[in-house]
Amino acid sequence: MKLATLDTPAALVDEACLQRNIARMQRQVSGLGPRLRPHVKTTKCVAVAEQQRAAGGTGITVSTLREAEAFFDAGFDDILYAVGIVPAKLPAVKALRARGCRLIVILDSLAAAQAVVQAGPGLEVMIEIDTDGHRAGIAPDAPLLLDVARTLHNGGAVLVGVMTHAGASYDCRTHEALQAMAEQERSRCVAAAERIRTAGIPCPEVSVGSTPTALSARHLAGVTEVRAGVYAFNDLVMHGVGVCGLGDIALSVLTTVIGHHGTWMLVDAGWMAMSRDRGTAGHALDFGYGAVCDEAGQPIEGLVMGSANQEHGLISWREGFDGGSLERRFPLGTRLRVLPNHACATAAQFQHYEVLKAGGSITRWPRFNGW
Amino acid sequence: MKLATLDTPAALVDEACLQRNIARMQRQVSGLGPRLRPHVKTTKCVAVAEQQRAAGGTGITVSTLREAEAFFDAGFDDILYAVGIVPAKLPAVKALRARGCRLIVILDSLAAAQAVVQAGPGLEVMIEIDTDGHRAGIAPDAPLLLDVARTLHNGGAVLVGVMTHAGASYDCRTHEALQAMAEQERSRCVAAAERIRTAGIPCPEVSVGSTPTALSARHLAGVTEVRAGVYAFNDLVMHGVGVCGLGDIALSVLTTVIGHHGTWMLVDAGWMAMSRDRGTAGHALDFGYGAVCDEAGQPIEGLVMGSANQEHGLISWREGFDGGSLERRFPLGTRLRVLPNHACATAAQFQHYEVLKAGGSITRWPRFNGW
Repeated sequence: MKLATLDTPAALVDEACLQRNIARMQRQVSGLGPRLRPHVKTTKCVAVAEQQRAAGGTGITVSTLREAEAFFDAGFDDILYAVGIVPAKLPAVKALRARGCRLIVILDSLAAAQAVVQAGPGLEVMIEIDTDGHRAGIAPDAPLLLDVARTLHNGGAVLVGVMTHAGASYDCRTHEALQAMAEQERSRCVAAAERIRTAGIPCPEVSVGSTPTALSARHLAGVTEVRAGVYAFNDLVMHGVGVCGLGDIALSVLTTVIGHHGTWMLVDAGWMAMSRDRGTAGHALDFGYGAVCDEAGQPIEGLVMGSANQEHGLISWREGFDGGSLERRFPLGTRLRVLPNHACATAAQFQHYEVLKAGGSITRWPRFNGW
Repeated sequence: MKLATLDTPAALVDEACLQRNIARMQRQVSGLGPRLRPHVKTTKCVAVAEQQRAAGGTGITVSTLREAEAFFDAGFDDILYAVGIVPAKLPAVKALRARGCRLIVILDSLAAAQAVVQAGPGLEVMIEIDTDGHRAGIAPDAPLLLDVARTLHNGGAVLVGVMTHAGASYDCRTHEALQAMAEQERSRCVAAAERIRTAGIPCPEVSVGSTPTALSARHLAGVTEVRAGVYAFNDLVMHGVGVCGLGDIALSVLTTVIGHHGTWMLVDAGWMAMSRDRGTAGHALDFGYGAVCDEAGQPIEGLVMGSANQEHGLISWREGFDGGSLERRFPLGTRLRVLPNHACATAAQFQHYEVLKAGGSITRWPRFNGW
């Protein structure tokens, strides 16, 4: 199979770019000291996770128990399930552990800690720390932190450590702001671990991460592990945040021009292929549903997918930019690539990746979805 | 399996509601005269399409060749592929027709008409008409219309008729505006057919449709077929447009409360489950990522999913509404249903539906995704 004969729409992965992205993050994190535990929620693809492991990654992070099960079946046996655990999901956690999987859960409440303790001894747990007010976690200085740590420790659970995710880094727009956010994420999470240790409770691990903070941190003193996911593919949001160039985006949607109408042309990649993610809507440069490249992957200046229906993408020149007649330049049947706003969301619209190898051949890698 | 023991998140379908929705649309369209050709892109589920057929639906509409293939394999042999055809997809169209499937394609350009003619005689085609300036199609009064019709007719293709989709109806907010849009869709599509017939070219079918216009039309003189899809499930966008109530939404996402933080609570349905669709963002009542109901499906006034990460939904009271402490009212482990903005998008995040039968039991219906 060659690029020119792939059916469209297709999720195309440039393998050389993917490998550069994986190497860059591993080099950055290893250079600062911690281990890297890649988050596989972006790619949900065993072949990608194997490349991340080969590059030096230690264990994986998952966002669903379905991911944990699928990756354990594929030979990954050190897994952090990084979404707050609830009582109803503990039987599935215990079943995976009984099969030999090291599966660590996270929590941020006494109710969840009590449920974990009641589920039986030896479950491995990290306490989620709030370092940015973004979503979840216990504040590093909250009394609740030690109550939860004691409940776990005294109740027979294994407190592996503390973890945080500075999701607020996605709102940073300058390198200085990213560096400051990385330092805030690091220092607050380390402080939480220190409080627990000072109280006499072992708390060996300090796990932090997001792609923007991981790529921006100047030092990671006290951190033992970094988690990040989207860096493998990168996307227009990461480009807007300032941590990658357009040429570092490994995932694109291959599409075909199916018509011309008014000031736009239609392609067969609509929101079902791109996802409904409008992650660059608040950015200085709004890419609509995606930035348009030619079939070889070269960005076409000024051309964006401004809107989308289920199976129709509407592509036009940016306001104020005139690149000439779309119908003449991109006649019916022209093939294009569209770079996604958010790789996690776009990838999830597909069942497999079409992987463009360095030599020009195409290999298909399955991914999975659902829960 | 019972509702109380389903893993979350899950795509829950209330079968009684689904059946009411199917019956309502069939009654409306049959009452006005035309056939109803359900669009299966919303549900992508054979069991639902079988119920639509049993209710009186004639043939189906699809948005991808993958849908055409899957539904033909399941016994549906009269299919309209309602996305503009391109040369590269004609071999797959011919292959399906060779297997005995009546597969009709659509187009709106001379280039596509010439490609269809060159692909060999007898292909069945509809010309797409632009009745609302929304996306695609040829204007009813454009010279191009007769050029395309002649190219097809003289070239040996079978011109089945004309078709249109008044996507602009989604922007209507009053019953009067919807009625006017339905009449515009009808009258302009009929006018296009009349022009072709006046030129001496047979044009038997006039196919129109969108859920809002189909449910609002007062008469459909000259129309032979109506297409609609989302009516089977309905959603918050249809509610905002004014063609259904909250109690008419058959699809919801079953979810579990996994934490409390600040002014919100977290559930295990994030945008991966709800989709990134923010279809009510421009409505008088913005539901964020979804309207929240209790586990039994009763809407909880003032409670919305205001934001979402991949596997985290953040639910809070609407600004200005105070429903009390979320932690006390909805403790860890509480199960809720979230009504989606856009059923087509939310359903596509799942591999199957958990169907709640009238008696309370749960049946699983597969759906499919991809291309």
